Amino acid sequence: MPSAAAEPLTPERILETTEEVLRRFGPTKATVVDVARALGVSHGSVYRHFPSKAALREAVTDRWLAKSVVRLEEIASAPAEPAPSKLEAWLEALFEAKRHKAGDDPELFATYTVLLAESSGVVDHHLSELIGQLTRIIAQGVADGTLAAQDVPAAARAVFDATGRFHDPQYAADWLSPTITAEFEAVTSLIVRGLRA
Amino acid sequence: MPSAAAEPLTPERILETTEEVLRRFGPTKATVVDVARALGVSHGSVYRHFPSKAALREAVTDRWLAKSVVRLEEIASAPAEPAPSKLEAWLEALFEAKRHKAGDDPELFATYTVLLAESSGVVDHHLSELIGQLTRIIAQGVADGTLAAQDVPAAARAVFDATGRFHDPQYAADWLSPTITAEFEAVTSLIVRGLRA
Repeated sequence: MPSAAAEPLTPERILETTEEVLRRFGPTKATVVDVARALGVSHGSVYRHFPSKAALREAVTDRWLAKSVVRLEEIASAPAEPAPSKLEAWLEALFEAKRHKAGDDPELFATYTVLLAESSGVVDHHLSELIGQLTRIIAQGVADGTLAAQDVPAAARAVFDATGRFHDPQYAADWLSPTITAEFEAVTSLIVRGLRA
Repeated sequence: MPSAAAEPLTPERILETTEEVLRRFGPTKATVVDVARALGVSHGSVYRHFPSKAALREAVTDRWLAKSVVRLEEIASAPAEPAPSKLEAWLEALFEAKRHKAGDDPELFATYTVLLAESSGVVDHHLSELIGQLTRIIAQGVADGTLAAQDVPAAARAVFDATGRFHDPQYAADWLSPTITAEFEAVTSLIVRGLRA
């Protein structure tokens, strides 16, 4: 990490550095002073952007979760794709995103699991966003006659709940199992079949 | 608890007492000496039936899980019931059993959650038994043409995985939510619809 005190201290730079500090020290040890030191600034300068350690952590968690939603939003918004295959692609992309985070960067994933337990407002927002995307996909299918659901938001919530084993961080250890892909496919095809018109 | 050293020291008496001791002291503090003291016998007498503390704990967990399976086995084996409603009734009974254990006796449930994490062989056996019951229900439906599944054991596993939010002890805190019953019903009807022929 360059000390780079000459660059302007933007919220984005602070959040990037906080992510690196969390990766290095873990969520229990990392402090605002560590973040300020890595940036070559005073901790007062960090507090000017984020008024507390909790606010900084929430912002980091929010940013991390937002990045994972971008690809899912693209799938949910694709105009030409039929709803049933869109639903499958979305569930697969969600599982892939969570698995990658858990597998490629286990220290940071563990860090975020702790943060997730702390910042429930941020997580609730993330879950609502995901269920909102599912709602749009199912509504599209109901509108064009490929899917059937009496209560679309309830159906979206049911799809999200029924696939929890493949996106809830509590199950991260199971994602290394050699049979997990087959299990994911079995659940997905059961659910998509359950929604078909 | 009566001291009742005169009664014969059966494995069943030891296990009943162990359950009470676990309820009183919790899984980290309860010892074989506590169990022996509650029974009014030497700890050697307990070890004659259960060679180690681990063996005793596994036997208690196994007994506790076996009790919850009895009602589910009755549903799975009911001769006249059509498979789709049998499947619904079975999933509801599983959720009810887990909820009751969590709600009526929270200390013991917390105790068992710890034991479950320790005694994976016992838990694996319990899960296989449950998935085996689901397999029989689905096979019955496939045989009489009410359900459709290409790979019956895989479909049973998918049903179990898709309903994890309503039986996995990790989610016990969610079972107190005022919306949990509606969420359970939405997932169950999605799954049963996904399996209908």
